[in-house]
Amino acid sequence: MAGDEGHRDPARAGDGPDHGKEAEIKNKLRDGSVRLYELEKQLPPVDAVRVRREFIEEETGTTLENIGIFSIDVDRASTRNCENMIGTVQVPVGVAGPLAINGEYAKGLFWLPLATTEGALIASVNRGAGAITKAGGAEVRILHDGMTRAPVFAAKSVGHAKEIADWAEAHFDDLAAIAATTTNHGKMTGLVTFVTGTSVFIRLEFDTKDAMGMNMVTIAGAKIADEIAQATGARLIALSGNMCSDKKPAAINGIMGRGRSVVAGVALSHEQIAKILKTDAATMVEVNYRKNLVGSARAGAMGFNAHAANVVAAMFIACGQDAAHAIDGSTCMTTIDATESGVYVAVTLPSLPVGTVGGGTSVDTQQECLKILGVAGGGSPAGANARKLAEIIAAGVLAGELSLIGALAAQHLARAHQELGRGVKR
Amino acid sequence: MAGDEGHRDPARAGDGPDHGKEAEIKNKLRDGSVRLYELEKQLPPVDAVRVRREFIEEETGTTLENIGIFSIDVDRASTRNCENMIGTVQVPVGVAGPLAINGEYAKGLFWLPLATTEGALIASVNRGAGAITKAGGAEVRILHDGMTRAPVFAAKSVGHAKEIADWAEAHFDDLAAIAATTTNHGKMTGLVTFVTGTSVFIRLEFDTKDAMGMNMVTIAGAKIADEIAQATGARLIALSGNMCSDKKPAAINGIMGRGRSVVAGVALSHEQIAKILKTDAATMVEVNYRKNLVGSARAGAMGFNAHAANVVAAMFIACGQDAAHAIDGSTCMTTIDATESGVYVAVTLPSLPVGTVGGGTSVDTQQECLKILGVAGGGSPAGANARKLAEIIAAGVLAGELSLIGALAAQHLARAHQELGRGVKR
Amino acid sequence: MAGDEGHRDPARAGDGPDHGKEAEIKNKLRDGSVRLYELEKQLPPVDAVRVRREFIEEETGTTLENIGIFSIDVDRASTRNCENMIGTVQVPVGVAGPLAINGEYAKGLFWLPLATTEGALIASVNRGAGAITKAGGAEVRILHDGMTRAPVFAAKSVGHAKEIADWAEAHFDDLAAIAATTTNHGKMTGLVTFVTGTSVFIRLEFDTKDAMGMNMVTIAGAKIADEIAQATGARLIALSGNMCSDKKPAAINGIMGRGRSVVAGVALSHEQIAKILKTDAATMVEVNYRKNLVGSARAGAMGFNAHAANVVAAMFIACGQDAAHAIDGSTCMTTIDATESGVYVAVTLPSLPVGTVGGGTSVDTQQECLKILGVAGGGSPAGANARKLAEIIAAGVLAGELSLIGALAAQHLARAHQELGRGVKR
Amino acid sequence: MAGDEGHRDPARAGDGPDHGKEAEIKNKLRDGSVRLYELEKQLPPVDAVRVRREFIEEETGTTLENIGIFSIDVDRASTRNCENMIGTVQVPVGVAGPLAINGEYAKGLFWLPLATTEGALIASVNRGAGAITKAGGAEVRILHDGMTRAPVFAAKSVGHAKEIADWAEAHFDDLAAIAATTTNHGKMTGLVTFVTGTSVFIRLEFDTKDAMGMNMVTIAGAKIADEIAQATGARLIALSGNMCSDKKPAAINGIMGRGRSVVAGVALSHEQIAKILKTDAATMVEVNYRKNLVGSARAGAMGFNAHAANVVAAMFIACGQDAAHAIDGSTCMTTIDATESGVYVAVTLPSLPVGTVGGGTSVDTQQECLKILGVAGGGSPAGANARKLAEIIAAGVLAGELSLIGALAAQHLARAHQELGRGVKR
Repeated sequence: MAGDEGHRDPARAGDGPDHGKEAEIKNKLRDGSVRLYELEKQLPPVDAVRVRREFIEEETGTTLENIGIFSIDVDRASTRNCENMIGTVQVPVGVAGPLAINGEYAKGLFWLPLATTEGALIASVNRGAGAITKAGGAEVRILHDGMTRAPVFAAKSVGHAKEIADWAEAHFDDLAAIAATTTNHGKMTGLVTFVTGTSVFIRLEFDTKDAMGMNMVTIAGAKIADEIAQATGARLIALSGNMCSDKKPAAINGIMGRGRSVVAGVALSHEQIAKILKTDAATMVEVNYRKNLVGSARAGAMGFNAHAANVVAAMFIACGQDAAHAIDGSTCMTTIDATESGVYVAVTLPSLPVGTVGGGTSVDTQQECLKILGVAGGGSPAGANARKLAEIIAAGVLAGELSLIGALAAQHLARAHQELGRGVKR
Repeated sequence: MAGDEGHRDPARAGDGPDHGKEAEIKNKLRDGSVRLYELEKQLPPVDAVRVRREFIEEETGTTLENIGIFSIDVDRASTRNCENMIGTVQVPVGVAGPLAINGEYAKGLFWLPLATTEGALIASVNRGAGAITKAGGAEVRILHDGMTRAPVFAAKSVGHAKEIADWAEAHFDDLAAIAATTTNHGKMTGLVTFVTGTSVFIRLEFDTKDAMGMNMVTIAGAKIADEIAQATGARLIALSGNMCSDKKPAAINGIMGRGRSVVAGVALSHEQIAKILKTDAATMVEVNYRKNLVGSARAGAMGFNAHAANVVAAMFIACGQDAAHAIDGSTCMTTIDATESGVYVAVTLPSLPVGTVGGGTSVDTQQECLKILGVAGGGSPAGANARKLAEIIAAGVLAGELSLIGALAAQHLARAHQELGRGVKR
Repeated sequence: MAGDEGHRDPARAGDGPDHGKEAEIKNKLRDGSVRLYELEKQLPPVDAVRVRREFIEEETGTTLENIGIFSIDVDRASTRNCENMIGTVQVPVGVAGPLAINGEYAKGLFWLPLATTEGALIASVNRGAGAITKAGGAEVRILHDGMTRAPVFAAKSVGHAKEIADWAEAHFDDLAAIAATTTNHGKMTGLVTFVTGTSVFIRLEFDTKDAMGMNMVTIAGAKIADEIAQATGARLIALSGNMCSDKKPAAINGIMGRGRSVVAGVALSHEQIAKILKTDAATMVEVNYRKNLVGSARAGAMGFNAHAANVVAAMFIACGQDAAHAIDGSTCMTTIDATESGVYVAVTLPSLPVGTVGGGTSVDTQQECLKILGVAGGGSPAGANARKLAEIIAAGVLAGELSLIGALAAQHLARAHQELGRGVKR
Repeated sequence: MAGDEGHRDPARAGDGPDHGKEAEIKNKLRDGSVRLYELEKQLPPVDAVRVRREFIEEETGTTLENIGIFSIDVDRASTRNCENMIGTVQVPVGVAGPLAINGEYAKGLFWLPLATTEGALIASVNRGAGAITKAGGAEVRILHDGMTRAPVFAAKSVGHAKEIADWAEAHFDDLAAIAATTTNHGKMTGLVTFVTGTSVFIRLEFDTKDAMGMNMVTIAGAKIADEIAQATGARLIALSGNMCSDKKPAAINGIMGRGRSVVAGVALSHEQIAKILKTDAATMVEVNYRKNLVGSARAGAMGFNAHAANVVAAMFIACGQDAAHAIDGSTCMTTIDATESGVYVAVTLPSLPVGTVGGGTSVDTQQECLKILGVAGGGSPAGANARKLAEIIAAGVLAGELSLIGALAAQHLARAHQELGRGVKR
């Protein structure tokens, strides 16, 4: 395996693997005296990953040749990103652009990296990016910024519940000071309480700067929750009481925001609509009205868009974001206003949890994607990079929406799929 | 880069790249006379990808060394999975297991591949898998199976709208026959109409066998939609009217199902709860009650679970599924019943769109992950592999829920994060 | 009080009340040896109501003079409509109309009775009715008709849960036969199962003809539920498992319908919009777009309308419907299409539980309101009256929406309120 | 009609109606030269109402004898509560109680007036009230208090939208001062902005004291909206942009509150559960879990309760509240905690818009119902009466929930209906 070797060599100082030791460990894995996750205690990471993969190959009767070919720093990945690591999956990355963005943080032309296996997606975003750029670029604004964690407590009665909530609200400064002892970067910026019967939810909000910030708020939240419990006699039930809400589509995030709340828009003239999107303003407005507004409403949907999650998922995977957060992208609302000169198309993403430090952002390939966007690592001032990333993703979503709605308007969807080779008759 | 070379050489018949031609093409890219997506018309795929990456490196002033290292079949990926391809991102893959599953399709012990950059996730699933396996395995059932597409039409009036809906319902057999001309594998199994003002949504449902099936139903839907439009005078507005609903969290999918609807459950004894999860039945029930039920309800959430989307996203990325469909995983409902002997924990996933053929399933690393699960390619009978995959993922979600709820119950969440190295003070 | 006397005399055969007996009973009420609800066992209804009212007057130090003035048949009301009756509240009734309706059941001009204390409401509906009538009338269609009840059962495991659901679906005919033994009028028309963990919800649907039908389906449901429990070993938890869903706004009702699903629409010309509503087509479309669609979506609302519930509540109270069902009216979706000739305005009410027999429909004043609409009592064929009532209410909602959206479009809302005397500076 | 005469005589100074004039007016009504709503301009209110009723009788071929019998002040009702008035409907009122309440405003024993035509409802609330009172009373707390109105504006672009929102937030004090010029009683207490594409929603919140307050905030909102439009160049689209949200079930009200947010709870011992409710703690917990939590969640419901809306609707109609606001009651969340000594049952009503002045509160019968509760008119301090009413209604909802869940637990629902005479075989 050329790729595998290429990786393994620099990771280990000169010596080859100790084959005898590895054989012995595999026997222990088989008899259960060593657990699969204990390999890193016995072998250098790169060997632990390989031995584990070989063990899985044996167990499942498979050959995991390609999973074993990778170049990312295995020491870091196997300890910080992925337990029981056996290698990597390679997700194809393409680019869409250049996309002109007029944000408060992102300004200029950008090439968007998208990691996806769904044919036609990047072509679609690319077409939308072209339209936006020709129209002078996407205007983008950050509306709100705050990562949340909402522990849930049990009270003895509804009266006690109100006391707990009142106490927490009255002690915001004290609790913020406690939060400050747990982080040098973040800052507690909000606290809202929700009493439901005897359950008290206290939703803490933080400015997490360039980090997505879930860990930061979880750690701070734990300490704050202990303090609240001690001071009020509340029983802490769970550090996350689902009013955060994390990785569940939730109205609270749509209404109060979570992560970065972003809006992006662009005005297209009648001529641009005709020339680039091969349709007209009234048809675009009608597609958005009947599909994204009426259709989603009747479906009881929490997202009013065409396929925003596609763009968010592809950019999140490329850029080392938490892929499960693509859910938040799905709650996007796409609006198309009829204007005298054509249409004004906008996407509103009330809840986009992104960061440029921590999590998967330091995995080598993902870091390179962040570099393509000029947002790898911490920004200056702190937070600027994460906000810039949020702006770029919102602009990318706008491109995707513009393109798909345009395609639907022209009833080209099925044809586009067939031409792009996905629609082979099965 | 060894990996890069290793890939490129076998892909091209003997000759090295033609450096002169490439330089010329790059000039044309710069002056706009060749578009980035046209490279595959001028160069072999492997070179097109490299030249494009080099162009992006120049444009953005970056070095995309690791993105360029990959081993997957670039001919296929660049034409079927990813336009404007520049390489791949490597997403770390780990395994959780062995997980005992008693499904109708998945029976026995499984090692689950999860692709993630979020530390602690696999360790969590692994712990849950251990608990389930010790308790005799997860019982899993497919409740419903059908991929949907819902075109939207405009009627002239509400009376006309009802006529269109009535006509479509009365012509189910004819429309199913039309669908049959577009696919050798799938079969139209349902048609439901929704009139909303003058908008008529016709939700078509298909048995798509081992394919996730979105393309299949889109192509069939297009032909059916044309027939309906012609026969009734309805104006086709969009092939997807958002009542499908695809990649938006939607009540309609929770209620009527989309893709595979799956339920998985396991009974844990008081002893197992104490020993493996270090907590007790009443506490688990209370955490689920206050967090997953009351908390989600108060948050206006569409998901009533702890972190189901994490497992779905990680398994989807590993197994070449459409990553944006992780949204459907987020609508999982986790229930914990107090029983005499302990607890019965279950997860219900009303809408899990998965396939073992098509889409990203044939990308080499993803295919290997499917092989680990014994579900690569078409099943026997057709559909068996996709259903088996759905059962395994549901069991994996159960493992993740069990573990996190157990951890929360023991108020171990923050500590677990810190120990796993993600929680370094920033 | 003349009204009181007028009522009491015909209700009792000649004799006046027995004052000695009543004084004794009041003493027993005070010492607790007779309970308030036991009065009807000791006195004729009309006296029981009066004695109870006098007791409450004493207890609360109030004079309930007007509550004691009523003309409805107290024998019926106090036994069938209202326990512990002390009299009535008088809700002002006004009429809006004439409203031209082109339904399948309601055809012609109608005067709509609305019972309300909210000034400006009837004036608003009246204005809308005028606009509709001038435009040729509201076209109305019933889309679906079925009252539901969904008992919930507990299974031993998810496997058992699926068995229960499968058994119920396979025994539809047997269960329908059981239902038939409980009612001479209704007919079971549907059965859908929902497994969620170990909870099995079985949603039964009935054609309840002219009855709203909740009692009918509850009684039939009880017998069916017993059969299912016996045959499958399921434990019946509750006759209503909230997937019915009754008196909770619920996506399931929006998607599958409950009661009568109705749609009403009308086309207005540019001239009519200008003349009657003092606004223009584009403004109406924009108000509906930004308020009823975007605003409701962003609010996480389940209703996409201006004030549909106002009309539904007022007509329900006037016509003896279950007032708490006004909730279903609130989930109305109002759509305004831009057309060449003006606008097409429509309201879609997926779930409108109405009846013309049973419940409050036989209370004398309510019965008179039904007579105004020509729908008192059973229809011919059975069901025709209830459907006609549903059509009329939908047309009334359309009138209300048209009027308020028109008023908003002209930014006349606040002024209208002030002029109608409600907006006195407080 | 004795009742009618009784009413009419005191309302008109001595003279009888002028029959000649009335005949002439009726002719004009018939030929359209006088409109139905113009009668009050030509006749004293009491005659206008009668003539209008007689006209409707003629038009519809009905006899509206009972609608014409009423005792409420027709001058006030026909001008402030009900346009085009023809009389009243009489809604039976019964009482439930005594109910012990330990609120911050409501303290002591209360008799609850409920206006309903749905048999069994009052009996159910009464049973629950008995249980609560025996258990020492319902503890009740107001969690939040604020009536809202959210105008929607159109911006030229998303950048402009953010400027509008920023301007409004920065000018809170100025806008509050403008609000103060429109009301002597209310006070603006909050302002939150929501940008969605080019739509800007500005949700204004007011302390409306004893008024429900919708008019107050509409009038103040109109003036504020004009100021915002003028200062920022925003186009005012509608004074209500549906993010208020009024009379639509909406997550925003559940999360941020609207009107009075109330919570009520009670602890029941094992003995009380057995004796009064004829069931046990575990069964009550299970019914609530499978029905109110899991069932509502799976139904995509916005309410997690058994029948809260029934109590809210009946008390709202009795007490002259806006009946369409019963919708807000339907979003109640009912929780039952298993405790060592039995259960703790609670209801949380995040959004209960009530008032004791204005609207229907001064209609004579409704005012008497408010007097039964000791909350007629303005409170001392201002707001105390409305809050007391909210507390009492919440306690009433708790009684209803307790009773129905208890009944379901004992599988007594159908039987109860049959015994109460509603379940006669039809």
